[in-house]
Amino acid sequence: MTPLVERFARVLGARGIVDDPADMAPYLRDWRGLRDGASPFVLRPATVEEAAEVVKIAATEGLAIVPQGGNTSLVAGAVPDSGGRQIVVSLTRMNRIRQIDPIDRTMIAEAGVTLKAAQDAALEKACLFPLSLAAEGSATIGGVLATNAGGNTTIRYGNARDLMLGIEAILPDGRIWNGLRRLRKDNTGYALRHLFAGSEGTLGLITAASLRLFPAPVDRAVAFCALRDEDAALALYRRFDARDARLRAFEYMSGAAVDLVRELIPGVSLPIASAGHYALVDLSSSDPSAGLRDIAESVLAEALETGEVIDATIAESQAQAEALWRIREEHSEAQRKAGLSIKNDVSVPVSAVPELLRAATAACVAILPGIRVAPFGHLGDGNIHFNLVQPEGGAAAFAAKNDALIAAVNSIVRRLDGSFSAEHGIGALKLDQLRDWRGGAEYEMFRAIKTALDPHGRFNPGKMLAEVDAP
Amino acid sequence: MTPLVERFARVLGARGIVDDPADMAPYLRDWRGLRDGASPFVLRPATVEEAAEVVKIAATEGLAIVPQGGNTSLVAGAVPDSGGRQIVVSLTRMNRIRQIDPIDRTMIAEAGVTLKAAQDAALEKACLFPLSLAAEGSATIGGVLATNAGGNTTIRYGNARDLMLGIEAILPDGRIWNGLRRLRKDNTGYALRHLFAGSEGTLGLITAASLRLFPAPVDRAVAFCALRDEDAALALYRRFDARDARLRAFEYMSGAAVDLVRELIPGVSLPIASAGHYALVDLSSSDPSAGLRDIAESVLAEALETGEVIDATIAESQAQAEALWRIREEHSEAQRKAGLSIKNDVSVPVSAVPELLRAATAACVAILPGIRVAPFGHLGDGNIHFNLVQPEGGAAAFAAKNDALIAAVNSIVRRLDGSFSAEHGIGALKLDQLRDWRGGAEYEMFRAIKTALDPHGRFNPGKMLAEVDAP
Repeated sequence: MTPLVERFARVLGARGIVDDPADMAPYLRDWRGLRDGASPFVLRPATVEEAAEVVKIAATEGLAIVPQGGNTSLVAGAVPDSGGRQIVVSLTRMNRIRQIDPIDRTMIAEAGVTLKAAQDAALEKACLFPLSLAAEGSATIGGVLATNAGGNTTIRYGNARDLMLGIEAILPDGRIWNGLRRLRKDNTGYALRHLFAGSEGTLGLITAASLRLFPAPVDRAVAFCALRDEDAALALYRRFDARDARLRAFEYMSGAAVDLVRELIPGVSLPIASAGHYALVDLSSSDPSAGLRDIAESVLAEALETGEVIDATIAESQAQAEALWRIREEHSEAQRKAGLSIKNDVSVPVSAVPELLRAATAACVAILPGIRVAPFGHLGDGNIHFNLVQPEGGAAAFAAKNDALIAAVNSIVRRLDGSFSAEHGIGALKLDQLRDWRGGAEYEMFRAIKTALDPHGRFNPGKMLAEVDAP
Repeated sequence: MTPLVERFARVLGARGIVDDPADMAPYLRDWRGLRDGASPFVLRPATVEEAAEVVKIAATEGLAIVPQGGNTSLVAGAVPDSGGRQIVVSLTRMNRIRQIDPIDRTMIAEAGVTLKAAQDAALEKACLFPLSLAAEGSATIGGVLATNAGGNTTIRYGNARDLMLGIEAILPDGRIWNGLRRLRKDNTGYALRHLFAGSEGTLGLITAASLRLFPAPVDRAVAFCALRDEDAALALYRRFDARDARLRAFEYMSGAAVDLVRELIPGVSLPIASAGHYALVDLSSSDPSAGLRDIAESVLAEALETGEVIDATIAESQAQAEALWRIREEHSEAQRKAGLSIKNDVSVPVSAVPELLRAATAACVAILPGIRVAPFGHLGDGNIHFNLVQPEGGAAAFAAKNDALIAAVNSIVRRLDGSFSAEHGIGALKLDQLRDWRGGAEYEMFRAIKTALDPHGRFNPGKMLAEVDAP
């Protein structure tokens, strides 16, 4: 053992250090397999005090830290670079629910608690922790807050930051900041928790968070609908929204995206007529007499009458509801199986979603005939995963057009006053886009804040903000 | 005219400068009449370009700027000090609604639009801008965002920051930052808008904001209830909340506070039996068939059965609903008429509200027998205005105990993990408390951010953060 690893071992014990190359591999490769980094070893503190000691030693040694939770970033945000001077600090051993209060509807969870474990802990107390996304079995509370994750339920409950009341973090000098308040109103100084949320590990190490809970739903209605066209998707969303119908999710899927799921995922079938566009509608309420099924039926009847909806089904059971959701949730896996793909995680004002779908599809087909344009996503909050899949047998041609396709989609998003990164963040992949889209005064404020809170640039260097040469 | 005022006059024209002492007076005295400041003149830009020019000139002249909206701060946050080197910049001429979109449910409003005008503009498009507070006829969008105002509807819609999608601001060097995005999801860099929200004018001049709207309510039920005790107030809140009853507000009032309204405000009467504790319950929905009155009746029937509720009435008309709300809204005016008062704007976790009410009442009565302990506030979000009113004829004794009474309430709030400033902020009045309660690493981060974004300390010096001696 080198002296450095010995210093860490004295703090963390043998269980807290991973240095076997085979054991380290999963920590060093990002979820999409785009980046392989190097780290002398991986540190796994089990308590906030251990985490603070780790950061202090790294500070005295001039080492950089890459915070990592479930390592499910889609923008390579939680793996080190290849230089070998960045140490991965994995929070997965900090996985305690410290407190859960069903009266206040709050929970204090450590950073390494998975999103699924947090949901389950809430449910045991007849509460709901509503954040929900495909990677919830692996993604952690620390990670979803550091990236301000969104997911399916933003239209009802907001993004991760909106579910957070307070944060505990290790600052770059190794001090513990305990900001774990549980208050809905607390106007005492700058909202530091909102600065750490979405900071992608560049300001410190989030070790715990106090979170909002909601009453657990007892009534639910889940419908799957075939739609006339893009405009019908928006119109149907507006019908439900205007009725105060307790929408929990409103997901859009293109016909091409659903076709990939039907072709490539065994055991998935479409329970309604096929179409060019689909919506999954999920209503939920803690009021047992909310009558959500009646509301869903009545809204769908109106939309069938106008022709917006071509065909629809409402789940008769929890199992049916899960089967409908599975069609939506298998989109990423189906696209992975179909070969090369490009993930454009974009957002636009909700009213512009139909225009985005039409214009970006036309632009991509013009660049590469045969391309499979397979958008899907969270229509209710304007966030569309405008994903592109290679033509069958056309990987090389697709790869050659990679940059042109991304540029074409982003140029339409820009015209529609949207964002090039709705919920995935910047990570290591979109540094140039951030500087381009948020340049000038805004980018300078980013840099000023980074310099003020992490003056030596020790936290997650090379992520979100392009590195500055040392002065 | 001095050369300085001439420079500003060239940018703003005569209408944009107030320099007559009588005309200036309302800009220099805070709403509670606690502070009288001095300013060489008051500047009133009408456009974002004028505002930017004003800040640039102030920067070159080394003058400080005090941003001001409706001047309704309860902590003297928007008036200058007495030194005469701080210039009030009033945003009230920037009062345009630049855009309103009922499909996206967004509005772009300039900083000087009053909260009431923003509500009315939304309503014209069958939308709701839900932020609601007593000063809404004067308070402005810029002010409510700079202070992250809360008010009555936080339990349903959140605080001001939760209703904000983007911000436009003049930075301390005079540059315009246009962050007026209208997206529900946009993970591109640090959340600067959340740093400006609640910054109390210390980081720059908010000139406009993009805001979230909601469907306008069409069904409503407003009830006024007499309660058995403090615990019953919490229990009743939980009954409504668990039913997904579309609570828009749940306001608590102590018997002493309501008695002051009945004594001192003409035309207000109590429509139910008198009691030691009351609640105002307001349900609203955009679904015409939501059946809110039935829900209210059913929940109240349960609570009458258990004895939590002693007596209750549900408004039969909009006029009756307004009459019930008037009892709540006249609290500040009644307390003003009753003589000296202390406003403790505190919050605790919701479950601790009954304990706060009991313990703080006992502590204050022990310090000053005869004191009128008259708490009221937003029980659903844990924010109680634990206000204290002088004994009749006992102003001097009350004033002598001012600090002891504040300390006694705050010490109980601290024990209950609460906050000394829930929604009013820090302003010029609570600088020491901020340093005390949020000291150490947290306060140092506040200072680092202030220095990073306003390095010369030009924006609202002496507010929120204690001034640092020049190096």
